[in-house]
Amino acid sequence: MNHTLTFTHDDRQDSVEVPTGTLLADAARLAGIDIGQPCGGQGRCGRCAVQVTSGTVRRRSALRLTDADIAQGYALACQTVVEGDVSIYVPPQEKIERRLTTDRVVAEVTVPEDYEYPFSQTVRRLPLTLNPPSMDDQTDDWARLQTAFRLQHGIEHLTCSLPVLRRIGGVLREGDWRVTAIIETIRPPDHPTIRLIDLLPGHVDEYAPLWGAAIDIGTTTVTLWLVDLVTGQVRAQVAEYNGQIARGEDVISRIIYASKNGGGDELRQRVLDTLNSLLELACKRVKLPEGKVTPDQIVKATIAGNSTMIHLLLGIPAASIRLSPFVTAVNHPPPLTGREVGLNVNPEASVDCLPGVASYVGADITAGVLSSGLADAENVTLFLDVGTNGETVLGNRDWLVTCACSAGPAFEGAGVVNGMRATTGAIEEVWINSESLEPTYRVIGGGKPKGICGSGLISLLAEAFITGVIDKGGNVNLGAPSPRVREGAHGGEYVVAWGAETESGEDIVITRVDIDNLLRAKAAIYAGFTVLAENVGIPLESVDKVLIGGSFGKYINVEKAVQIGLLPDMEWTRFEFLGNTSVKGAYLALLDWRKRERITEIAKRMTYIELSADNRFYEAFTSALFLPHTDLSKFPSVAEALEKT
Amino acid sequence: MNHTLTFTHDDRQDSVEVPTGTLLADAARLAGIDIGQPCGGQGRCGRCAVQVTSGTVRRRSALRLTDADIAQGYALACQTVVEGDVSIYVPPQEKIERRLTTDRVVAEVTVPEDYEYPFSQTVRRLPLTLNPPSMDDQTDDWARLQTAFRLQHGIEHLTCSLPVLRRIGGVLREGDWRVTAIIETIRPPDHPTIRLIDLLPGHVDEYAPLWGAAIDIGTTTVTLWLVDLVTGQVRAQVAEYNGQIARGEDVISRIIYASKNGGGDELRQRVLDTLNSLLELACKRVKLPEGKVTPDQIVKATIAGNSTMIHLLLGIPAASIRLSPFVTAVNHPPPLTGREVGLNVNPEASVDCLPGVASYVGADITAGVLSSGLADAENVTLFLDVGTNGETVLGNRDWLVTCACSAGPAFEGAGVVNGMRATTGAIEEVWINSESLEPTYRVIGGGKPKGICGSGLISLLAEAFITGVIDKGGNVNLGAPSPRVREGAHGGEYVVAWGAETESGEDIVITRVDIDNLLRAKAAIYAGFTVLAENVGIPLESVDKVLIGGSFGKYINVEKAVQIGLLPDMEWTRFEFLGNTSVKGAYLALLDWRKRERITEIAKRMTYIELSADNRFYEAFTSALFLPHTDLSKFPSVAEALEKT
Repeated sequence: MNHTLTFTHDDRQDSVEVPTGTLLADAARLAGIDIGQPCGGQGRCGRCAVQVTSGTVRRRSALRLTDADIAQGYALACQTVVEGDVSIYVPPQEKIERRLTTDRVVAEVTVPEDYEYPFSQTVRRLPLTLNPPSMDDQTDDWARLQTAFRLQHGIEHLTCSLPVLRRIGGVLREGDWRVTAIIETIRPPDHPTIRLIDLLPGHVDEYAPLWGAAIDIGTTTVTLWLVDLVTGQVRAQVAEYNGQIARGEDVISRIIYASKNGGGDELRQRVLDTLNSLLELACKRVKLPEGKVTPDQIVKATIAGNSTMIHLLLGIPAASIRLSPFVTAVNHPPPLTGREVGLNVNPEASVDCLPGVASYVGADITAGVLSSGLADAENVTLFLDVGTNGETVLGNRDWLVTCACSAGPAFEGAGVVNGMRATTGAIEEVWINSESLEPTYRVIGGGKPKGICGSGLISLLAEAFITGVIDKGGNVNLGAPSPRVREGAHGGEYVVAWGAETESGEDIVITRVDIDNLLRAKAAIYAGFTVLAENVGIPLESVDKVLIGGSFGKYINVEKAVQIGLLPDMEWTRFEFLGNTSVKGAYLALLDWRKRERITEIAKRMTYIELSADNRFYEAFTSALFLPHTDLSKFPSVAEALEKT
Repeated sequence: MNHTLTFTHDDRQDSVEVPTGTLLADAARLAGIDIGQPCGGQGRCGRCAVQVTSGTVRRRSALRLTDADIAQGYALACQTVVEGDVSIYVPPQEKIERRLTTDRVVAEVTVPEDYEYPFSQTVRRLPLTLNPPSMDDQTDDWARLQTAFRLQHGIEHLTCSLPVLRRIGGVLREGDWRVTAIIETIRPPDHPTIRLIDLLPGHVDEYAPLWGAAIDIGTTTVTLWLVDLVTGQVRAQVAEYNGQIARGEDVISRIIYASKNGGGDELRQRVLDTLNSLLELACKRVKLPEGKVTPDQIVKATIAGNSTMIHLLLGIPAASIRLSPFVTAVNHPPPLTGREVGLNVNPEASVDCLPGVASYVGADITAGVLSSGLADAENVTLFLDVGTNGETVLGNRDWLVTCACSAGPAFEGAGVVNGMRATTGAIEEVWINSESLEPTYRVIGGGKPKGICGSGLISLLAEAFITGVIDKGGNVNLGAPSPRVREGAHGGEYVVAWGAETESGEDIVITRVDIDNLLRAKAAIYAGFTVLAENVGIPLESVDKVLIGGSFGKYINVEKAVQIGLLPDMEWTRFEFLGNTSVKGAYLALLDWRKRERITEIAKRMTYIELSADNRFYEAFTSALFLPHTDLSKFPSVAEALEKT
């Protein structure tokens, strides 16, 4: 039986007909209304609540809603089904800030010294001049082209797809038998194959750019570098939030959403939309005297990303990633084309998804191990990717071990009352006066604060701990002599900014619950690398360097991160912040087939340690749930700082 | 500016809005009305004439229409454009007889003695049993499958497409880690690659059928054999007119139609529709105790056909085939899949289009050379494919030369007033009493005659010549003592069947114009093989055997064919009628990779002689425009027969 649903949103109304039992979230999508589901439609976050103003619905779950909410008709769109004609009011959705602060994503990149386009690059552009057919030489177009490849470039065994084959005759005649081929050398184990990507009429200037894209698909942020494969130079860097965020903020929520009917297709389309808009944007950023660059000129893309992101991009079911024994469908996807993946690049473009190691150690990490130099290090080195998933690699040029711990998105602002991502309006650093307990803070963009981002939370936690606003267990010291310390709805809290100073007019606080979430996140990361080191019998002190990847990692204040026990206590010179090591690894692999083979070799060489089956991890995690740690002797510099105050 | 067109047809009306200048034929297609265009929309055949009952149109050409026709509003749909609101009456279209007489297409096929499925066949079915993943073995699904292939079948370097990769995880779990793989061994020049076509849950009985299809796409008829690749047996044979006939009866008309806007896509879809309905039909014909066969179970298809048919099937522009210097876009298409070609078989099925030699010597001929045994013959042998295009091959196991002559579709009933294809109602054989000049005839299906098919035309021409109804120049002897000989609208004619005996109630005749068309067709074929023999210095007398392919060839009466000078005058025992040698060659190549490689080798070995550039061909053609030939000494048996009468 069908019912009419009328949605009121953004000052307009839209109606849709759906059968009994349809989820409100699905009905809204049919009506063209986007209701965010940050938990992936699990009914956990409460962010998809809408108000049923008339008609009958059935709530499967109403977690996060109070009795008063329910009395007013509120219902979770992801957990409520239609049972009759219904009118619904959709409250204004929190809009995701659509543009990342650009200066925060631009990396300094130098072309590797050993890059030599004709030798390093698998994609090349070749001029060809053919003898026209005549009554004395009726060779077919395709064989004629193959002969020219053999005689003019020594290339045997050319392959091409049907769509390219369809165009060959026209291009040969349009170019009057002078053409430019774009080819890819594929290196299977035994012998190289040459694939014809495109054929263009006439001869092209040999120094003209040939376009490639290095891509990192993060759970939160997608980064794309547009590269001229001839010079190796990065000509544009762009980044954007992953459009999948609206359907889950962490990989687990996304996997759950993808497992629903149509959810996988939707998530695939969302990340493709993000990628395709980034391709457009990057092309627009490049100004060439010879004209515009368009995405269809991109003939090669190399993609890094965690295993879930790669599965969702390729439309491969990801359900097994979150269920014991936690296996992926594929760690090393086969070579693909733009057409197969759905990218708006040249349909025949080579699309190379880099290999991962395990469900929670993906291609972003293998790429990071390459670009960070860890795989070439003489001394034992620790590589940390501080992000939604805390991946850790320990090793040197001879051995590599890795693990992942589910840190959760607390450092990206999720699960924290006034948490937010690192965009305009985020408090990114906090200082607390040890006498007055009054804070000073810095806001990204300089305006009124809207919330606190990851680096701000680390700095706030450290300052609050050192000044005694909170104790080593994370409890807010309600006896502290400051009006900023108070009992709130979620237990003790500390006011970082009074309502009068903020964008919304409401106080920005950190609560006991927030602190617990942050402690769990930092404890997971710390426990991860300590258990890893223990596993291979390497004391943490003997680690020569700590390389920190992830664009978030770039803004961490080491002192503060040590003070909360997120990073191990060692000389600050041993830490290196590398920014987005994943996109950099994708860039290196995009340029040079030897580096690309190196990543495969790294992926094979990395030994994955499964922490979820390891009791030592839980012990280490529990011990690390304090500030900085139950065992203060592991943090001598923090002990010293505490003594001073 | 848009106009409304209203079509009245088959007792109903359909309207469509189109802009000024739209062709009536295109507007009719938009309205869902199928107007036949046997000449491919060139305005030559007059068969698409419709009646404009009101409104303004502009006739670009009105060939074949009389002034009286035009006065009544008749216009060629393919040559007339809209200039205002128009009403159109579409006369009932000649329906193409939709089903070929089945017993005329079933060939006797025996499985080659040397066929051994595991060794000869490139497609195989393999059982696999995998160790399930565990916390101690978190290998990804795809690597786990590859390991099982390596350990259980010694297979390295497995490839698979993204759509198959998406399904692997689900199938492995559905089959509880016992699965059946369908794989293809690809043999590139250097080393074999294994491609995963499909993965099925559980283990399949190893003797269960594995389905393949051998296909011949003729200009007129498409033939399909459904083959069990395990036993090699042909389990169903089906044939159907090529759906492209409605847009051109010969390859030239089709190429012209394909060159029009959207014409290529339409022709591609038409032959795909024919193929897909044949796949359905063939599957329905097979009854298995274990259930139904469906087209998606077909995992391999091998396709023969002339070069134009292969180009049109693959959507490759064919224009260069008909323009000097007459080259194809491709003689040897790369290996394709069901998805790429658009066949409703398994989307990953291997689709192999056999190699051709030149624009007018295609894969139907290379397949025919294989299946006829010509390429293994010790003595010099002539192979003729008597069809719309008269292809000829001369040679033995050491050398092969070939040529094509555009015989035209006269022997398929086109360009002959009462000509028709060899279906129910066609007069297939004629005898004329030398005294009374009264004919006797045999009709396919035994009912009232509707027209005369190719074998009937040959037999009629021969009888009329031997009995003096027509002279050696093809002129009807109007002085002959019979009411059947008379002056008609197109010159002299002979009545084969009076209206009282026929299906339509109108006389069935052969006219002077018909005879000219038939003479040109037979002269082209005769000139083709004589010039070919001359070219290599082989007297026709020393040809050991004449092998005749083409399903049409199967019904030729040798005596009659010699009497009209279509075949050379030699002992009848030297002729062999082989039926559809093209589909048989496709069948052999489908089964055995060695035979498939043999066809490639045959295609390379065949020397193509271009007759259009050869004066000797025109001389030979002119000399052969008589019955049986200007030089009667070349036809001693005919001279003898003439003396007897």
